[in-house]
Amino acid sequence: MLSRMDDPAGDALHRAFDPEVFRRDGHAAVERLADYLRDALDGGSLPVLPWAPPEAALAAWPAEFPERGGTPFAELLERAIAGSIHLHHPRFVGHQVTAPLPHAALAEFAAALLNNGMAVYEMGPAATAMEHAVVRFLCGALGLGGGAGTDPEPGGVLTSGGSLGNLTALLAARRAGAGFDAWRDGAAAGPPLAFLAGADVHYALARAAGIMGLGADGLVRVPLDARRRLAPEQLKPALAVAARAGRRVLGVAANAGSTPVGAFDPLEEIAEFCAREGLWLHVDGAHGAAAALSPKYRGLVAGIERADSVVWDAHKMLLVPALVTAVLFRDARRSWDPFAEDAPYLFPGAVRGEGEAWFDVAHRTLECTKRMMSFELYAVLAGFGPALLGDYVTRCFDLARRFGELLEETPDFELPVAPEANIVCFRYVPLGGDQDLDAVQERVRRRLIEDGSFYLVQTRLDGAVHLRTTLIHPRTSEADLADLLTAIRRAAAA
Amino acid sequence: MLSRMDDPAGDALHRAFDPEVFRRDGHAAVERLADYLRDALDGGSLPVLPWAPPEAALAAWPAEFPERGGTPFAELLERAIAGSIHLHHPRFVGHQVTAPLPHAALAEFAAALLNNGMAVYEMGPAATAMEHAVVRFLCGALGLGGGAGTDPEPGGVLTSGGSLGNLTALLAARRAGAGFDAWRDGAAAGPPLAFLAGADVHYALARAAGIMGLGADGLVRVPLDARRRLAPEQLKPALAVAARAGRRVLGVAANAGSTPVGAFDPLEEIAEFCAREGLWLHVDGAHGAAAALSPKYRGLVAGIERADSVVWDAHKMLLVPALVTAVLFRDARRSWDPFAEDAPYLFPGAVRGEGEAWFDVAHRTLECTKRMMSFELYAVLAGFGPALLGDYVTRCFDLARRFGELLEETPDFELPVAPEANIVCFRYVPLGGDQDLDAVQERVRRRLIEDGSFYLVQTRLDGAVHLRTTLIHPRTSEADLADLLTAIRRAAAA
Repeated sequence: MLSRMDDPAGDALHRAFDPEVFRRDGHAAVERLADYLRDALDGGSLPVLPWAPPEAALAAWPAEFPERGGTPFAELLERAIAGSIHLHHPRFVGHQVTAPLPHAALAEFAAALLNNGMAVYEMGPAATAMEHAVVRFLCGALGLGGGAGTDPEPGGVLTSGGSLGNLTALLAARRAGAGFDAWRDGAAAGPPLAFLAGADVHYALARAAGIMGLGADGLVRVPLDARRRLAPEQLKPALAVAARAGRRVLGVAANAGSTPVGAFDPLEEIAEFCAREGLWLHVDGAHGAAAALSPKYRGLVAGIERADSVVWDAHKMLLVPALVTAVLFRDARRSWDPFAEDAPYLFPGAVRGEGEAWFDVAHRTLECTKRMMSFELYAVLAGFGPALLGDYVTRCFDLARRFGELLEETPDFELPVAPEANIVCFRYVPLGGDQDLDAVQERVRRRLIEDGSFYLVQTRLDGAVHLRTTLIHPRTSEADLADLLTAIRRAAAA
Repeated sequence: MLSRMDDPAGDALHRAFDPEVFRRDGHAAVERLADYLRDALDGGSLPVLPWAPPEAALAAWPAEFPERGGTPFAELLERAIAGSIHLHHPRFVGHQVTAPLPHAALAEFAAALLNNGMAVYEMGPAATAMEHAVVRFLCGALGLGGGAGTDPEPGGVLTSGGSLGNLTALLAARRAGAGFDAWRDGAAAGPPLAFLAGADVHYALARAAGIMGLGADGLVRVPLDARRRLAPEQLKPALAVAARAGRRVLGVAANAGSTPVGAFDPLEEIAEFCAREGLWLHVDGAHGAAAALSPKYRGLVAGIERADSVVWDAHKMLLVPALVTAVLFRDARRSWDPFAEDAPYLFPGAVRGEGEAWFDVAHRTLECTKRMMSFELYAVLAGFGPALLGDYVTRCFDLARRFGELLEETPDFELPVAPEANIVCFRYVPLGGDQDLDAVQERVRRRLIEDGSFYLVQTRLDGAVHLRTTLIHPRTSEADLADLLTAIRRAAAA
């Protein structure tokens, strides 16, 4: 009979799990990561992005692995750091991914070792309870449906990312409003379905429509106003167009902080329209729902409390590592609607239904096994408090306004839309030049990211290439942004 | 002008990011987690599951957070450990979630701090290159399409979990075989679609069909043989039934390691059928694809190299924390098919298409921002080598066979299906009793998990409740399993 130790494979496995080796390498990793954090926050000694062409990165990480391994973890860590973009560098002003609080990374570390799978309560009791708590907190922060203790009570789940969160919410809307059972009987069992959405909605919404078999016309684009917000007076004509095309409109997908420019759709007016027309209101607040935590900026999301569903990415503006996305419902019971199936090995009882098994979360997420992602957010809220997050949002939004003012005051820069959140798009327009301005932006961005001085991105607004920044790092300063403009001029001239 | 330091919110934020506090708390966390690992692996001093009713867990993790926080991280960590199921306990024989290698948790720790979002190459150069490498390794391990360097070349992506992986693969199959553009024109633009799948396929496949609007009949259940494997001679009749119902069958979804009992469908014969009928072959190898790494057991997945798509969860049998799922394609180009959209702020160039932007992975996953999950698997492969994983698979599968023999030799236990993988279902049948056997299994399981001596699960096979174990811990011994039977008898008698 095999004991725990006497087989050779067991020996190698035994060593691989040795707690003392883990202790030693763990301490070394903490040292290295703390030094890294110090250097990155300082910003002086590191490029934001250690640019290398993709093929060079590929060569640095070969797909050949010796049968018995042997690469020390410290070496792998060193190389991973060297080949990563440094989000903790204050001149990271690129995509909407946060420089996480280091304690949130510690929570994730523990979560990775504990590895509680969370599909059912037994597989993660603390993680499940923490998820319930943070979801309740987020619902309360939005005042969803009037807050906790109301009837219906709000609620929801955590899931892996905003795209999956938006898909989950739209599936709930389909079940609520299709008038037939698209899940059981198929999409062709009733009229074609559609959602109305502002033209700047995230591509995840179009993806959800594509996945669900609604077709490209299943997402009806509603025109925007001059500040790139959904123009509410355009909702009624859009609804009429969809109806004439034989489509049953399920709801409106609104933005609270659009991806291109951080615009907030006028949620009050959209909620009014949805109430009048009997439509589901979904708010993609992946980025901007966090405004609710800022006393100064919570007016931007006025009306969000009337939404039927809200998606909110904690890894955007709540300072936790990706991916932690909340899918919140004004009526928690709707959170059982997106998915439906039997899995007797997982859910022994007859638990599907109205809130009776709040603690077996896999009923309500696409994931079966899920990371215990709730620990990251719980650790941030319990350790640092909601006020820190509110301060952070306020600071980032303030900074974006100041940057917007700077751009407006500066003759060789154009600001197409005054920022509402912390996303600022702009265009460098060299004075007296007669150049291809799209090419100028692209060249400037390429040079800056390749020399590692700043990381910023680009987008097209009304067809024109713009530089795009997200001021998401808590230590980015106005001086950094003034330097950015100087660096852009220099890069364009080079 | 605001400098980096002189605003109060900046002060609080400054402290929250203090590298020296992180260093101190990080070392303390390593100490605590290393002690935890030692205790859990020892198995003596901890219950497998510190059972508490869900309402008690809820009360332990309140949703109230003081405005300025203040709970020390060490306290949160202590409580998270106390309220978690202990996967590193050798008597965890429950769901298919692994006790991760501690160095994989270290990799995740670094990944969480670095937080490279990976949607585009710039947002995670090393992570993207590591993903390419591990995907290449996994394709090679399966011999997919004949291995690397063949034409077409195999390839794929990493994504967040098996359910999302299976959905991704079925979307590729839909694009390949529907005969119309369901993404653009909607599911109703052509005949209703369907997949054939064994009756024991994971609920994720049914979910994918429901999400995509195929309807419940969009997953045609093919009967199983006596060992609960898809019966290949039933494929043709199932195809005929679907055709008579007016459905266009896109492909066959086969199991390599079914969830209920770990059965391997006969992939060679199924591949033969698919080739003959022009159907897509998808293999859900979330659990069992890892057999390919075991010289002793790789015959179980013979034929998998002919699959069009394979899903393989590294968090099941590759010793990494959840979620790390590979979606592999025999022809890498198919990995651009599931999703299609524009996102100029993300993908500046016109890069969609045949392999030209392998390095911007968000084209090919539902996730936009994604965890740098590749680092976990790369660290395991480079640090410990493929042989360790092969040894681990061999050991677990061996142990399951020995457990099956033990159950067969033991008069008061019934083994419905001899195990092929490391999942063993059985039933306790007290001698001379005339009891409700379903109730006996449920009562026994409830008592064992509540007293913390073992964690096992249950399922229904042909309507009858069975106890279900996954022998996934590298240190579970035959002695543990003999003790399990004793504990079951005692629990039933109590």
